[in-house]
Amino acid sequence: MKLSQIGELLLLEQIKKSFKKKSRNIVVGIGDDAAVVKLKDKKLLLTTDMMVEGVHFDLDFITPYQLGFKLISVNVSDIYAMGGKPFYLLLNIAVKKDMDTKFITSLFDGVKDAIRLYDTFLIGGDLSDTNIGMALSATVIGGVKRHIPRSGAKIGDKIYVTGKLGDSACGLELLKKIRRPVPLEKNCSTFNVQRLTKNLGLSWNVIEPLLRRHLMPEARDPKKFVTYATSMIDISDGLLIDLWRLCDESKVGVRIYIEKIPVSSELKKAALYLGISPIKLALSGGEDYELLFTAPDRKKVEAVYIGEIIKSERLIVDSSGKENAFTATGYQHFRGK
Amino acid sequence: MKLSQIGELLLLEQIKKSFKKKSRNIVVGIGDDAAVVKLKDKKLLLTTDMMVEGVHFDLDFITPYQLGFKLISVNVSDIYAMGGKPFYLLLNIAVKKDMDTKFITSLFDGVKDAIRLYDTFLIGGDLSDTNIGMALSATVIGGVKRHIPRSGAKIGDKIYVTGKLGDSACGLELLKKIRRPVPLEKNCSTFNVQRLTKNLGLSWNVIEPLLRRHLMPEARDPKKFVTYATSMIDISDGLLIDLWRLCDESKVGVRIYIEKIPVSSELKKAALYLGISPIKLALSGGEDYELLFTAPDRKKVEAVYIGEIIKSERLIVDSSGKENAFTATGYQHFRGK
Repeated sequence: MKLSQIGELLLLEQIKKSFKKKSRNIVVGIGDDAAVVKLKDKKLLLTTDMMVEGVHFDLDFITPYQLGFKLISVNVSDIYAMGGKPFYLLLNIAVKKDMDTKFITSLFDGVKDAIRLYDTFLIGGDLSDTNIGMALSATVIGGVKRHIPRSGAKIGDKIYVTGKLGDSACGLELLKKIRRPVPLEKNCSTFNVQRLTKNLGLSWNVIEPLLRRHLMPEARDPKKFVTYATSMIDISDGLLIDLWRLCDESKVGVRIYIEKIPVSSELKKAALYLGISPIKLALSGGEDYELLFTAPDRKKVEAVYIGEIIKSERLIVDSSGKENAFTATGYQHFRGK
Repeated sequence: MKLSQIGELLLLEQIKKSFKKKSRNIVVGIGDDAAVVKLKDKKLLLTTDMMVEGVHFDLDFITPYQLGFKLISVNVSDIYAMGGKPFYLLLNIAVKKDMDTKFITSLFDGVKDAIRLYDTFLIGGDLSDTNIGMALSATVIGGVKRHIPRSGAKIGDKIYVTGKLGDSACGLELLKKIRRPVPLEKNCSTFNVQRLTKNLGLSWNVIEPLLRRHLMPEARDPKKFVTYATSMIDISDGLLIDLWRLCDESKVGVRIYIEKIPVSSELKKAALYLGISPIKLALSGGEDYELLFTAPDRKKVEAVYIGEIIKSERLIVDSSGKENAFTATGYQHFRGK
C-alpha cells in the first residue's frame, strides 16, 4: 500500500501505538504539540544529525530497516562521545508519498530495535511529504554527570580508540560492487549469499562484518572509561580529521603510530581484493562510529592505545619508526565540485 | 561565493562565532559532539519540525531570511502551544553545495532575529550537503511549569483563538500571483512595491500584512492565559482540522460560530480580489500559527471567543443561526495523488 492511500494521520496513529511504552519520566509522549519530560537537576546533552538521500545513503544499497537503525546509532554516538547516556529521541522523516507503507514500517522496525539497544525512548517527531528525495533527522537528548569535551586533552595523555577502524568504509566499497541492499537484519535465506560471495571471491565471514559495520553500526558506550577520560570525540568523518578536531579544541599536538591502529583481518582481506590500502581506510575512511579519547598515562584502559598527546606537532609514525607530519583528511561537506 | 569554495568547517566556524552568546545554563554550546545544558528540576518540552523544499516552501516565493525566521517560529509555536517557554534550539540544514554563501548568511540572519524575538539560544545542529533540494529541521527544547495538553478540554469550556485567521493562506495565494520573493525584512526601496501593487490592483497596506503572516509568522506567547487554559493547540493545518484534533484528544464535541471567527479587513479585500471565500481561508487555510485553546466559562480571557465545548457533536453555526456538522478539513501529508 502506498503512503498516499493511508495518509499522515493514520500513519501517525500506527507509530504512536508502536512506540507507546513509556519511561516514568515521560509526562506526554508522541501526539501533542511537544513532548513533556520531567528531569531532576540534570546536566542534559542535546544532539542532532541528519541523513540525506544521495549524500548519506543510497536506497539501492541500504534497506529501510538499516537506515532507521543507523540514524539512531549515529545520533546516540554523539551522546556517548560526551560521556553520557541517551534518554529521549525525536525523529523527522520526509518521504515521497508514493513510497510503499512497508518501507516506513521497516524503517520504524530499525528505529525500534536501535532504541531498545540503547535503552532510549521515542517521544516525538514530524512526518512530511517530499518531492525531492528522502531526508531524515534525529535529535537525541541525553544526560551526563561529568561531560567529556573535545577540549580536555593534556600533554602526556595517551590516545585510545574503542575498536577496529576502516571496516565501515571498506563495507561501503564492497556495497559499491554488490550494488544492492544486503538484508543483514533478516535470516539470510531470503538473500542469495552464495551468489554474492562467488561473484566477489570473498567468503561471507569476511564480507558480513564489514557490511554490518557500515549498514548497522552500533555506537560504543563509554561507561568503562567515562570516569577518567580527559577528552573524547566519535569518529564519524575519519580518524585523522576527528583527531585533528580534538587537537584543535584541546590546543595540543599528537603522535600516533600506524602499527598501533587496530585493523580487522576481514578488512585486510577485503582491501587486498579491492586494491585499496587498509591503513588508508582506517585513517580516513570515516563512519567508524568508534570513540577516540584521551586518558592520563597512569591509567589501565580497556581500549586500544594508538599514541600520545604532545605539545604542538601532529605526527604519524610509520612502521620503520619514521615520523611524518599529517594533515586533516576526511570527509567535509560542500567541498569540491 | 559558493558553499563549495568555503567548505563545511569554515562555515561552521562562522556560525559558531555568530551565535556565541551564551545563557548561564549553557555549559557547552555549538562545536562539540553534543551541547550540554544544566537544568534544575524542570519539566522540559521537546518538539521538532521540518521544512522541505517543494512541500513547505518554494525558493521562488520566499527569501532565505524569511525561511530561517519561519523555521524557528513554527517550532516555537509548538512550545507555546504546550504553555511553555523556548530555551534552546538545534538546527539541521541540508543545502546544495553550489548555493551562494550569501544565501546561508541570510538564512542565519533570519534564525538570529527569530531567536532574539523568542529569547532562545542556538546550541547545536548539523549542516549537510544535498543533491536533491533543500531540507531544514529544527528542534526546540523548552520549559514549562504546568503544561497544557490537547486533551484537557471540558464540556462547558469556551473556545478562543489568539488572532485573525486565514491571513497566512491568503498571503500564499497572493504569492502565487506575485511569483517572486518579497523581501519584507528589508527596506522596501530594494523592491518595486509600486509595480507590484499596480499589477495586483491592491494597496501595499492590504498586501503587506497578509504576506508577512505567511512568510514571517510570529508565534503567539500564551502567558496571558497560561494559568487557566484547559487545553491548547497551535493552528498549523487549519482551524477545523486542529480543532478536530483537540476534540479527539479531549473526547468532547464543539460548537463554533462562523460570525465569531476573526477575519482581518485585509483578508476580506484580498479574498474578494482573488475570488476566494474569506471564511474558507479562515476555517481551513492553515499555517495560521495562532493558538486555539479552551478555558472555563467564568474567566475573562484576552483572546477571541469563537464557541464552546459540548458533549459530542461537532457543529458550526452559520450567520442565519443554522447548525451544521463539520468534518476535519485541512492539510494532511501524503494524501491524494
